[in-house]
Amino acid sequence: MKHNIKPAEGKLGILLPGLGAVATTMIAGVESVKKGLTQPIGSLTQMGTIRLGKRTENRRPKIKDFVPLADLNDIVWGGWDVYSDNVYEAASHAQVLERHHIEAVKDQLQAIVPMKAAFDRDYARNLDGTHVKTGTRWEMAQELMEDITNFKESNGLDRVVIVWCASTEVFFEASDIHSTLEKFEEALKADDKRIAPSMLYAYAALKLGVPFANGAPNLTVDIPAMVELAKLTGTPIAGKDFKTGQTLVKTILAPGLATRSLGVSGWFSTNILGNRDGLVLDAPENFKTKEVSKGGVLEDILNADDQPELYGDLYHKIRINYYPPHGDNKESWDNIDIFGWMGYKMQIKINFLCRDSILAAPVALDLALFSDFAKRAGMSGIQEWLSFYLKSPQTAPGLPAENDIFKQLIKLENTLRYLMGEDLITHLGLDYYEELVEVEN
Amino acid sequence: MKHNIKPAEGKLGILLPGLGAVATTMIAGVESVKKGLTQPIGSLTQMGTIRLGKRTENRRPKIKDFVPLADLNDIVWGGWDVYSDNVYEAASHAQVLERHHIEAVKDQLQAIVPMKAAFDRDYARNLDGTHVKTGTRWEMAQELMEDITNFKESNGLDRVVIVWCASTEVFFEASDIHSTLEKFEEALKADDKRIAPSMLYAYAALKLGVPFANGAPNLTVDIPAMVELAKLTGTPIAGKDFKTGQTLVKTILAPGLATRSLGVSGWFSTNILGNRDGLVLDAPENFKTKEVSKGGVLEDILNADDQPELYGDLYHKIRINYYPPHGDNKESWDNIDIFGWMGYKMQIKINFLCRDSILAAPVALDLALFSDFAKRAGMSGIQEWLSFYLKSPQTAPGLPAENDIFKQLIKLENTLRYLMGEDLITHLGLDYYEELVEVEN
Amino acid sequence: MKHNIKPAEGKLGILLPGLGAVATTMIAGVESVKKGLTQPIGSLTQMGTIRLGKRTENRRPKIKDFVPLADLNDIVWGGWDVYSDNVYEAASHAQVLERHHIEAVKDQLQAIVPMKAAFDRDYARNLDGTHVKTGTRWEMAQELMEDITNFKESNGLDRVVIVWCASTEVFFEASDIHSTLEKFEEALKADDKRIAPSMLYAYAALKLGVPFANGAPNLTVDIPAMVELAKLTGTPIAGKDFKTGQTLVKTILAPGLATRSLGVSGWFSTNILGNRDGLVLDAPENFKTKEVSKGGVLEDILNADDQPELYGDLYHKIRINYYPPHGDNKESWDNIDIFGWMGYKMQIKINFLCRDSILAAPVALDLALFSDFAKRAGMSGIQEWLSFYLKSPQTAPGLPAENDIFKQLIKLENTLRYLMGEDLITHLGLDYYEELVEVEN
Amino acid sequence: MKHNIKPAEGKLGILLPGLGAVATTMIAGVESVKKGLTQPIGSLTQMGTIRLGKRTENRRPKIKDFVPLADLNDIVWGGWDVYSDNVYEAASHAQVLERHHIEAVKDQLQAIVPMKAAFDRDYARNLDGTHVKTGTRWEMAQELMEDITNFKESNGLDRVVIVWCASTEVFFEASDIHSTLEKFEEALKADDKRIAPSMLYAYAALKLGVPFANGAPNLTVDIPAMVELAKLTGTPIAGKDFKTGQTLVKTILAPGLATRSLGVSGWFSTNILGNRDGLVLDAPENFKTKEVSKGGVLEDILNADDQPELYGDLYHKIRINYYPPHGDNKESWDNIDIFGWMGYKMQIKINFLCRDSILAAPVALDLALFSDFAKRAGMSGIQEWLSFYLKSPQTAPGLPAENDIFKQLIKLENTLRYLMGEDLITHLGLDYYEELVEVEN
Repeated sequence: MKHNIKPAEGKLGILLPGLGAVATTMIAGVESVKKGLTQPIGSLTQMGTIRLGKRTENRRPKIKDFVPLADLNDIVWGGWDVYSDNVYEAASHAQVLERHHIEAVKDQLQAIVPMKAAFDRDYARNLDGTHVKTGTRWEMAQELMEDITNFKESNGLDRVVIVWCASTEVFFEASDIHSTLEKFEEALKADDKRIAPSMLYAYAALKLGVPFANGAPNLTVDIPAMVELAKLTGTPIAGKDFKTGQTLVKTILAPGLATRSLGVSGWFSTNILGNRDGLVLDAPENFKTKEVSKGGVLEDILNADDQPELYGDLYHKIRINYYPPHGDNKESWDNIDIFGWMGYKMQIKINFLCRDSILAAPVALDLALFSDFAKRAGMSGIQEWLSFYLKSPQTAPGLPAENDIFKQLIKLENTLRYLMGEDLITHLGLDYYEELVEVEN
Repeated sequence: MKHNIKPAEGKLGILLPGLGAVATTMIAGVESVKKGLTQPIGSLTQMGTIRLGKRTENRRPKIKDFVPLADLNDIVWGGWDVYSDNVYEAASHAQVLERHHIEAVKDQLQAIVPMKAAFDRDYARNLDGTHVKTGTRWEMAQELMEDITNFKESNGLDRVVIVWCASTEVFFEASDIHSTLEKFEEALKADDKRIAPSMLYAYAALKLGVPFANGAPNLTVDIPAMVELAKLTGTPIAGKDFKTGQTLVKTILAPGLATRSLGVSGWFSTNILGNRDGLVLDAPENFKTKEVSKGGVLEDILNADDQPELYGDLYHKIRINYYPPHGDNKESWDNIDIFGWMGYKMQIKINFLCRDSILAAPVALDLALFSDFAKRAGMSGIQEWLSFYLKSPQTAPGLPAENDIFKQLIKLENTLRYLMGEDLITHLGLDYYEELVEVEN
Repeated sequence: MKHNIKPAEGKLGILLPGLGAVATTMIAGVESVKKGLTQPIGSLTQMGTIRLGKRTENRRPKIKDFVPLADLNDIVWGGWDVYSDNVYEAASHAQVLERHHIEAVKDQLQAIVPMKAAFDRDYARNLDGTHVKTGTRWEMAQELMEDITNFKESNGLDRVVIVWCASTEVFFEASDIHSTLEKFEEALKADDKRIAPSMLYAYAALKLGVPFANGAPNLTVDIPAMVELAKLTGTPIAGKDFKTGQTLVKTILAPGLATRSLGVSGWFSTNILGNRDGLVLDAPENFKTKEVSKGGVLEDILNADDQPELYGDLYHKIRINYYPPHGDNKESWDNIDIFGWMGYKMQIKINFLCRDSILAAPVALDLALFSDFAKRAGMSGIQEWLSFYLKSPQTAPGLPAENDIFKQLIKLENTLRYLMGEDLITHLGLDYYEELVEVEN
Repeated sequence: MKHNIKPAEGKLGILLPGLGAVATTMIAGVESVKKGLTQPIGSLTQMGTIRLGKRTENRRPKIKDFVPLADLNDIVWGGWDVYSDNVYEAASHAQVLERHHIEAVKDQLQAIVPMKAAFDRDYARNLDGTHVKTGTRWEMAQELMEDITNFKESNGLDRVVIVWCASTEVFFEASDIHSTLEKFEEALKADDKRIAPSMLYAYAALKLGVPFANGAPNLTVDIPAMVELAKLTGTPIAGKDFKTGQTLVKTILAPGLATRSLGVSGWFSTNILGNRDGLVLDAPENFKTKEVSKGGVLEDILNADDQPELYGDLYHKIRINYYPPHGDNKESWDNIDIFGWMGYKMQIKINFLCRDSILAAPVALDLALFSDFAKRAGMSGIQEWLSFYLKSPQTAPGLPAENDIFKQLIKLENTLRYLMGEDLITHLGLDYYEELVEVEN
């Protein structure tokens, strides 16, 4: 049975807190795709296909042709930043894209000018931007709601979504003020320092029923108060932390080792990167936030409780090193110590010469488009099926996160099939065993 | 609904053509496990768990506690080889296991003495064994049937399975004589050179209703005549080529890249190994057989027809190099050229310091135990759900092989769930979206 | 005592057989340096410094300020090729340099048009050029001499040198016709197929007293007949095979392991590259020539006769793989098996993401400038001090080649010091031990 | 002219502060070599050869046959440690050597029992040993002198040397109390905390004329007071920090890049190790000492003052990570960003799967034997020619350290040639250029 999903008519505004490397790469890319100059590689919504029905049916439409997503031509961009550079300038500084790719969409990029950011330097010590709002947290939240409303009205938009593309904030844990919407709003009014800037954006969005996806490891929407608000206003939320680079590879390889019941005794992961993200993470209190986000994936996939002989002694260590010579070309090196039959040791080394923003941009785009889709499909609160894109998926209380990227993909695809009234795929393949089928009938 | 599966009572004979590195490592390991000295790491049947029911139920039994498999204590070993060494001697020569691991099960290993092999040097030029049968192909096949029957009777066995653990044969393609059982038997009687030695073992096994799994890339059971015979005698077959090392990693990583719609323009794979397998593959005509087996996996997973923009230009090159300093410690290095957003290039390098026989031994064991299980469950012919263990899975005519190890695992697990009357898993997770569930009800 | 060296006055012509990737990269680079746009990184003659006198003197002039070399502004380029593209076109096809680097010197590059090549397809099967000379070998040699003379006269040059930048020829060994100048000239007249095309260029050059350096592993000047001719006309020769990439690293690392008396049991080297050089080497008979050139370096540096316990069992294997996705960005991976104290094993893996022509271009330039210098210094025949630049240095009969790059550099530097009348450097450092110095005095 | 060197008669005592992984590996190895069970691979004194005279003379004796070194059979071992384990127990705990290698020399190892260590936990917070001396620094120094004298007398030794094999101490800089012998002795009497434990051993040794080599990056003998004392008592000193693993490779590769005038923009070095050394270095204040020692080598070899275009922007970062799964099997990964012709970028990645103590043991042995040799040759104070073995060679005030391992080796070899009256080697090779030789004569 197909569900009732509102069509993707009219324009979709995508608002981005943080117009840095990731955001400008996404924008420049989409504008370039609209001109037919490049392809949106890495975007499941744009490039991905989905198998439908039995394998002998050979139905494999593109996802964007299967579910009603906003068209790239209907996107209108906006955002906030602590620096006042327009997107053309910011993309140039980011040094992710080659000159000619930026120049080809110069007019489109120059037209996007950031609104002033809600910022508190205590949450990102290595940034020094001055293009910021003043006032209390409560006042800033109100201003952000005005920003969103103005943006929607002045551009004649049908819908808006927000994707956090700004920095990692310092590490802190949720406390009592984050536990209910009521307490959160009280704290907001009291200008409580424990409310991170990112929460102001999330609060403003959810109040207005605007879906919010969180690309950084910050708590942001991953607190009970926000889940409550999201349910209240019927708004999807997704977080946290774009899954790219090393963690992407980790959530590919670890399930693979687990399929074969191979033991893992150690996993050492180091990263070198030289972009603004690297600079922020050079501060230990910000790195802590990222470390927690990256650290959990192995413990979930290689489950020591379930398989103590295989994963009970796993030693997992992650390092991120600021290394200017590489700029945005983040690079990771992993050493993985595994053991097999009779306990014999083997090693796997992976060196990923990746590009941080190139991997993140399509993830940000997909989260924007799928969040908008979820809203139209009537799905509010935590979007578990979007875990696929996230390093540290938000879960319902008590439920473990699913970090295995293949289970995440099945979840995503079966969710789409389910919503569109198609059969779920189980890969059973009974056609091979006539005896069994006869038994069945 | 649970299917009718005969219990695993009595003794199970495992017969191995080829008592070399893989076979002796498997045998020594199982004997060592039986004594409580080591763990059967890498074996899904022994170590693996399977989720049953909803995730909140927390049911994750070991597979061997879920489905009725033969107990390791009920296994009796036997085999054939072109050298007359007993398994203790062969294990010592193989230089896979440490001295003390072999000594600990010396008595058990010494007792296993190979029967004379059916051999034709034209199929493995770099081998020079003399412990071989004489006579025509027809005569050798009859002798092999006698070998099997004698082994079963003299050991008081309930059931027997065969797992091919011998060398890669030279490359050739199926011809008319392989197309039907009748033509095959005629050719057998005519001592036709186009019948490879491995086919003699397969024929003997299937005639007697003994399941046959093929750990090498040889054609063997992957011809219509054998499928016909398997169906006739209600016997499971599985092939071909144990999936270990580089190909294992490839079928883990390639699906991972595909999940994210990342493009792949090149994949260069090189291997260095110094064991007898490496020596055999140093002959170009044997390497050809292996190359074809290894080569297909990428083309299936990274489907150029389905996604020409992403995989249309994929250049895939595989090299295997005989390198004595590494012995059985096969090592692979892969360079993978990928591209993402707007076509930007990235690279992944993987260096796998693996151990060939350590990875293969539990695969051989699982194939033996699952083949026996399939026989008791009444499943004959190609066992698609065992593709999980194989580099080049045999398929029904016209159906593509599934090489994605995660889909293979789902297939395997859902097959077990299906046979045991448990719900299939789809990872849908509707509990997150109450709105949808309400719609459902 | 300083030697008598003619000054570098007037213009120097550099003639290049093979206007492909290496040659066009060298030319574009030098023209770019002349315009002040880039730096000649990697060129010892242009960037290198040399220590003179005691270390407390702090004398470290640039080499080009120490010895009288031709100035880059005095260079005039010319060459031959089997394709008629001018250097601007050829540089564009080579895909080594970024567009803007080529455009910046477009006028200079367009002006350089190749003369017709002396070619025999039997020596390079994978090439199909048609811009070639006709006639017998003797006639082609005469034409080449005319080409050189015309080039010199029409450009008003003072001196000319030739550096072979063309392809690797098929493997063959020197025979009787290469043993003396007389026999060689007879064979030339008889149009003997055993005279390779590269030898025609070398013969023409040496007859005219023009220095000849050989950047490919071809025999060319490494035959007695050519040495005889070089001595006769007082002409320097240098060969063979530009030392770049993997071999460069090998001749750095192997001496390092040897300094510490570490054993080496295996060295596996693989390369992937996708340029025209890679295409030529895809033919086994051309690869053989390269393999021999690359193979010798380890056996010289890790001397099994001198140190059988350390290097007696060294297994050295080299592979070159044509891999189009990487173009000119040649990449190597080495696995090195070493052993230390009490025989314990260790491993070193080196992955070099290099650029073939970028490494070769400054080597070609230095060989041109130093060959011209040697001629003016009155040094004829084999230039052993230029071994530094070569994979397979040509030696006097009976003398082993020196492949250790550090000894090669000392040889080069001490040769320059000697010619310029400076003290040789021995790194003795007696100043640390006053007691000894007192004994001395 | 050959110098007057006292013969190596009688027994040589080698005293080791720190009977941990390195010391016990050295002792077990030497004892094993004495029994003919293994070879002293990695030891230049035992395995190395040296070229003498012209290359055509083919004189390449072993170093131990060329210079008068103590025979391994004349060595008597002793040492101090903060744990009371004998060397058999300590070697077992260190988990460097295989069981059978330790058992083969069990009697020899058990007989070596440590004396109580001079220790101050403020210098190594992660150690908790209790087998320590009490009393003031002055008293401990006196006790150490008694230890040495007793050891010498009770074993009937002719000579003694000391090699520091204990941990890295916390970082601190030399101050006024380290500037002269007089001030140092005053501070010793005042029990000044600024005197590190290692300095007590060095002081005791030098007072007694016992050579002292320092295998850790601690200051120890690298202060003016110790140099003064060494000169006073005619005693050789060598320090600091055994050059093994990553730094060894770095001082091999960096000179290699410099030979070719290749630029280096970044060098990222990470290490993983899980032995006691790794545990000590997990404390930031101890890591600082090591970082300084490791950090200097590049800046010396890739000289930014001399070559600002090539090395002016070099970014060098070193990380050491405690990673228990690897134990003593220290592993390093280096990413090196280089640039060549016209500034084009290339990368080198090096993964060294090394064994820390296996590389260090022969270095410790050679330093012991050469220090004893230097004493007999009448060379006191800093032994610059032993820089070859050290990460951070001690120098005379104002002189830069030489870190290029090839120059260090030439220095070592030419020192030996000089002392033994052989010609120094300059690799000039004039025999190739008869013209020049004629000019000479």
